[in-house]
Amino acid sequence: MDVLERIDAFWRAANYLSVGQIYLLDNPLLREPLRDEHIKPRLLGHWGTTPGLNLIFAHLNRIILERDQDMIYVAGPGHGGPAAVAFSWLEGTYSERYPEVSQDARGMKRLFRQFSFPGGVPSHVAPETPGSIHEGGELGYSLAHAYGAAFDNPDLVVACVVGDGEAETGPLAASWHSNKFLNPARDGIVLPILHLNGYKIANPTVLARIPEAELLKLMEGYGYRPHVVAGDDPKAVHRLLADTLDTVFDEIAAIKSGSGDPLPMIILRTPKGWTGPKEFDGLPVEGTWRSHQVPFGAVRGHPERLRLLEEWLRSYRPEELFDADGRPVDEIRALVPRGPRRMSGNPHANGGEILRPLVLPDFRDYAVEVKEPATTHSEPTRVLGAFLRDVIANNPDNFRLVGPDETASNRLSAVFETTQRTWDAEVLPTDENLGPDGRVLEVLSEHLCQGWLEGYLLTGRHGLFNSYEAFIHIVDSMFNQHAKWLDACQDIPWRRPIASLNYLLSSHVWRQDHNGFTHQDPGFLDIVVNKKASVVRVYLPPDANTLLSVADHCLRSRNYVNVIVAGKQPVLNLMSMDEAIIHCTRGIGILPWASNDAGAKPDVVLACCGDVPTQETLAAAALLREHLPELKVRVINIVDLMRLQPPEEHPHGMSDAEFDSLFTVDRPIILNFHGYPWLIHRLTYRRRGHHNLHVRGYKEEGTTTTPFDMAMLNDIDRYHLVMDVIDRVPGLGERAAHLRQEMADRRLAARRYTREHGDDPAEIRDWTWPY
Amino acid sequence: MDVLERIDAFWRAANYLSVGQIYLLDNPLLREPLRDEHIKPRLLGHWGTTPGLNLIFAHLNRIILERDQDMIYVAGPGHGGPAAVAFSWLEGTYSERYPEVSQDARGMKRLFRQFSFPGGVPSHVAPETPGSIHEGGELGYSLAHAYGAAFDNPDLVVACVVGDGEAETGPLAASWHSNKFLNPARDGIVLPILHLNGYKIANPTVLARIPEAELLKLMEGYGYRPHVVAGDDPKAVHRLLADTLDTVFDEIAAIKSGSGDPLPMIILRTPKGWTGPKEFDGLPVEGTWRSHQVPFGAVRGHPERLRLLEEWLRSYRPEELFDADGRPVDEIRALVPRGPRRMSGNPHANGGEILRPLVLPDFRDYAVEVKEPATTHSEPTRVLGAFLRDVIANNPDNFRLVGPDETASNRLSAVFETTQRTWDAEVLPTDENLGPDGRVLEVLSEHLCQGWLEGYLLTGRHGLFNSYEAFIHIVDSMFNQHAKWLDACQDIPWRRPIASLNYLLSSHVWRQDHNGFTHQDPGFLDIVVNKKASVVRVYLPPDANTLLSVADHCLRSRNYVNVIVAGKQPVLNLMSMDEAIIHCTRGIGILPWASNDAGAKPDVVLACCGDVPTQETLAAAALLREHLPELKVRVINIVDLMRLQPPEEHPHGMSDAEFDSLFTVDRPIILNFHGYPWLIHRLTYRRRGHHNLHVRGYKEEGTTTTPFDMAMLNDIDRYHLVMDVIDRVPGLGERAAHLRQEMADRRLAARRYTREHGDDPAEIRDWTWPY
Repeated sequence: MDVLERIDAFWRAANYLSVGQIYLLDNPLLREPLRDEHIKPRLLGHWGTTPGLNLIFAHLNRIILERDQDMIYVAGPGHGGPAAVAFSWLEGTYSERYPEVSQDARGMKRLFRQFSFPGGVPSHVAPETPGSIHEGGELGYSLAHAYGAAFDNPDLVVACVVGDGEAETGPLAASWHSNKFLNPARDGIVLPILHLNGYKIANPTVLARIPEAELLKLMEGYGYRPHVVAGDDPKAVHRLLADTLDTVFDEIAAIKSGSGDPLPMIILRTPKGWTGPKEFDGLPVEGTWRSHQVPFGAVRGHPERLRLLEEWLRSYRPEELFDADGRPVDEIRALVPRGPRRMSGNPHANGGEILRPLVLPDFRDYAVEVKEPATTHSEPTRVLGAFLRDVIANNPDNFRLVGPDETASNRLSAVFETTQRTWDAEVLPTDENLGPDGRVLEVLSEHLCQGWLEGYLLTGRHGLFNSYEAFIHIVDSMFNQHAKWLDACQDIPWRRPIASLNYLLSSHVWRQDHNGFTHQDPGFLDIVVNKKASVVRVYLPPDANTLLSVADHCLRSRNYVNVIVAGKQPVLNLMSMDEAIIHCTRGIGILPWASNDAGAKPDVVLACCGDVPTQETLAAAALLREHLPELKVRVINIVDLMRLQPPEEHPHGMSDAEFDSLFTVDRPIILNFHGYPWLIHRLTYRRRGHHNLHVRGYKEEGTTTTPFDMAMLNDIDRYHLVMDVIDRVPGLGERAAHLRQEMADRRLAARRYTREHGDDPAEIRDWTWPY
Repeated sequence: MDVLERIDAFWRAANYLSVGQIYLLDNPLLREPLRDEHIKPRLLGHWGTTPGLNLIFAHLNRIILERDQDMIYVAGPGHGGPAAVAFSWLEGTYSERYPEVSQDARGMKRLFRQFSFPGGVPSHVAPETPGSIHEGGELGYSLAHAYGAAFDNPDLVVACVVGDGEAETGPLAASWHSNKFLNPARDGIVLPILHLNGYKIANPTVLARIPEAELLKLMEGYGYRPHVVAGDDPKAVHRLLADTLDTVFDEIAAIKSGSGDPLPMIILRTPKGWTGPKEFDGLPVEGTWRSHQVPFGAVRGHPERLRLLEEWLRSYRPEELFDADGRPVDEIRALVPRGPRRMSGNPHANGGEILRPLVLPDFRDYAVEVKEPATTHSEPTRVLGAFLRDVIANNPDNFRLVGPDETASNRLSAVFETTQRTWDAEVLPTDENLGPDGRVLEVLSEHLCQGWLEGYLLTGRHGLFNSYEAFIHIVDSMFNQHAKWLDACQDIPWRRPIASLNYLLSSHVWRQDHNGFTHQDPGFLDIVVNKKASVVRVYLPPDANTLLSVADHCLRSRNYVNVIVAGKQPVLNLMSMDEAIIHCTRGIGILPWASNDAGAKPDVVLACCGDVPTQETLAAAALLREHLPELKVRVINIVDLMRLQPPEEHPHGMSDAEFDSLFTVDRPIILNFHGYPWLIHRLTYRRRGHHNLHVRGYKEEGTTTTPFDMAMLNDIDRYHLVMDVIDRVPGLGERAAHLRQEMADRRLAARRYTREHGDDPAEIRDWTWPY
């Protein structure tokens, strides 16, 4: 057998195993004629993309063997789950991860049965699949994941199969431009393989139907050197693909040596469902959308379909591929690289295995000095920027800061004292902070930011995504998928813990007064809290020191999605570093200096969560102390939102006893929240004091106006909070009624001032805690 | 003045008005030297993109005048709010819409003051801006909106300025391919103008820094014929841009005549912040990112900045542009087209003005016959497909069905009996249902589906977006922005009502058992309910007839976002058409045949919302009736989710009295919900009976398994519901305890059966209501 014959055997074996997974319960090696009871009762799975994925994998193995190439495989058409399972079984990795699925006839039967079967494995490339960093359920992210994996991995090649359906998505269309952010000298190489099998679910694909000259220009326009491999005769395609891969990997070697050439990419044009049934029921199947899922169903009870299936399976000549015990024959095993060189067993694809902890500076060294609470101001994200600068300096090859062109806008600019923005395109003399070795990845695409970071984390590195709060919704669905990945990994012991995905949401709803209504949306938190409590954490530090403490904690954590919401505008410094650490460790606590209920039960609880709501709550507490000094007010700040949930719903949830002692069970609670108010009700509806809980928050009122006007539009302002207290605490009497009127008047006056002068009154802007 | 001089004057005037909006409170015509009190206290706005937007607008006006061209203008760089306000004021439209902002010195002062000012107008192109269909806050959707506007508008040209920042986003990168879905014979023409001013917020842009040859290939690869206009000398650019536009519009005329040529597009390369300050504080401003927002701030109290600003404003020579009363001079007015030909006054950009109601067939004609409830099955979306087929047939030029290649998968294939999928690329003999006149737009990009439909609706047409439920999250942020647009329009009387944006979410969470965990996410409802109650509606019809009734209602509605969740798999038919109409009109109601509490207070309320949860609830009710016949059970179905909210929170909300009489205030309520259970708590936490409410729903448990196993994984199955009832109704005694044990046993048996046989037990699959 020459090497192309070995490749063909590997390919046939993988195809055979793929069809087997979709159809067979038993009789895996066709030792007897197929009968109904060998067939699964529900036929589920996707065949169409599978032979293409198998073909590429087999050919890449030859390259790995010949060049000792470190390589991982990203399968964009994730519906090709049967393929990824098949080739990891052929490589032995599957049986190493799942010993019960042994590499023999017994294991093969198990392999077939478990696929898309209750209690078995999912039908897509998934966390359960060895060698994968890419869940193929939702399409569009393969190429961004591939680039993320390649960054800072200079010896790695990431082969990325892009399906032509997936190629129609926005995120994928933008991902081609990732090559402007990859430095071949210090990063690995991404090899995109655009697989044009012509169809998506029920339609032809755009890129398969434009003239080839146009497609080549598109790829050249994206900055690649395209190589076309097309055909439907296996022998010819094997020859052509092998030759092309030799050329491509020579080009990659030249690029690694500094040739400066564009990255190569391959356009592979082969039939959808290749080697499957040519037609069924008189209609063409191979080469059409009809082979997308199961080419023909209802096999049980239809002898002619049973025969068709058997013919199809036997067309791969399984007797040549597997020995008497069902093990792959030597010729196939000869195409399997050793140990970690196997793409299905490459440690980069199980990033936790090679994760190095960050070398973190002591966050306390960046603290703002706070002698008296709430008398000085800081811009929290600017303070954080200095910490992040040194995180970057300490970890020059395994930490990335990503964001959609907002790092400076979010006031993290200190990072540019130690690094630059990654930029491999043209640089002009007037440019600042651009360079090929920059650790900051900025592109005006939240999808790319998220996709790159996911790829980076999944291959064992660390990072932080900073974004405007409103526009993080752009990646809601990517967050969902990553959270689901992490959730699934909790049941997969061989997936080692990876660094958490950390979001810093700044330029938030309360200080988008200059950008207006479109930039005001705190609803990402609602999306996050929908996911499993075991993987999501939400923090709203109220000032600079608490932000430092929270950020340090998040950077040390594993396997979570951490969401930090923190403003960039000046806010009051509330706590010394020591106090901040205690407060953040507890996640919630009383602010004693703002409360006057010492040693007694409060008349009212003012709770707050988020920096701007906290300031307004403090100002309300001060007004109450001034005007109704006999009223006992307890002020509570919440940093860790998940503390509010019951402990059986979230591991951070506090006990009912603790909740009751903090919030009381019978006193009015006015909770001033950063986000949509109903999120708080959703977290607390089971608490005893819930019927006393009144939540203020963003209620979708906004425009371009002043910060305090924004607060007033949504009733989270200090004056309204005082009115809320007076409305809810019984028996306050005449003085309180007067105060209520005064508050209403001051609101009106503030609004009038704002509309006249275009700015907030100075007493609002300059307010600090009165001592 | 020749025409280029007129264009230059218009441009200078628009630039002057733009700078004035950003900086000035008073002294709009510079009749006296600038003083501090003429300057706004907070300087907000975006200058960088503004001169480019003004330039293109002025030049397009010449084309409109010379060719009597029907044209609208989509400003992708939405931060160019000052530009859009400026040129609509110059065209007189602004003063027609807002008479208090008259076209004279007094009005100009008002125009300046109101911009980004409390109580004034937003800083972006927004619903308030005449002539706009595109809110520019979140970037990436301009080109998709432009194509949506062009579909079925054969005489229209949609000029679409694409910012080079925006061009980095995924949705925009995919949008270029929209040309494969546009038929020049029956659609209008989109003219993309890629404005390369080189920078986004703080970074250069990718497309401005790749070699021009690469950029040209990219555009040719996308299927366009690019024309480059570049320069920084106004005269030269005017000449070149005018000549290029003549060429381009000749090409468009040829295309309209059937030339078959590619669509032209323009690459315009001019400096960011062109004509603004060259430098400030020793650093370059014009032509760099420093001109992105306000080129220099803190003007008050800094005389040298005041002088700089005055020089800048005077550089436009306002005395030549505005007459003694502050009106634009005749030379400028001569460049303004008449009435509806003005891009700022074109009725296509205020779609409600030209909206024609749909000619709807009688949905009752498509009803499934239901003699006895819950004894026969239908696939709801397949039934709906026949209705939609005739909606399409009746409305051949103003209704579009869009979806990401899932129309057939979602079983709406009946539409292909009357129409095709739009497809202007190559068609092969094996293809089905493809053609240039198809009314179904399918592309594997939810972003394009949403963007096209938004553009189509905003220009006065109708449509429906069908999608897999989980992946509609991909457009969460686009939904947010459209809902905000609709919300803002409620305060803008001249914006006439447009057709609602209708979502049909099928292939939903409960029947993604074959695709698995990644395809299981019902959280879009949580996102939708965050938006203003006045613009969102959510329906979960439990069967085919209720789906028909709901769909008819949604297609008739205006100014809403309607979300319909309905399955494609067979479900029980519950209601005759007459019953369905009554039930949907009420939005919630008792299913009398499934209840046995007639004339008495129930012991327990079983509520359900969504098709699969409803079936499980019915099965639970039947089990209870069989085994505990003395237990009085009331079964309630909820179609209109918003009925659950208090009436002060949502116009559909039912009164407390109604809620209490349906749900009781003291009996256990087990509510089986389609989505995440906490959404129900969020909607009902103020109700009296809330403490008795126990909600089941999707709790993020799933994989590739059988439908009933999915139900069991999340405890929404019939057996678990019976157990819930027994756990919550006091005093049921020994028989109930035995029943509880039997239910637990049957769950285990079902699970065991499933894992063994790979399918649900027949008694589950074939269950109907026992009579």
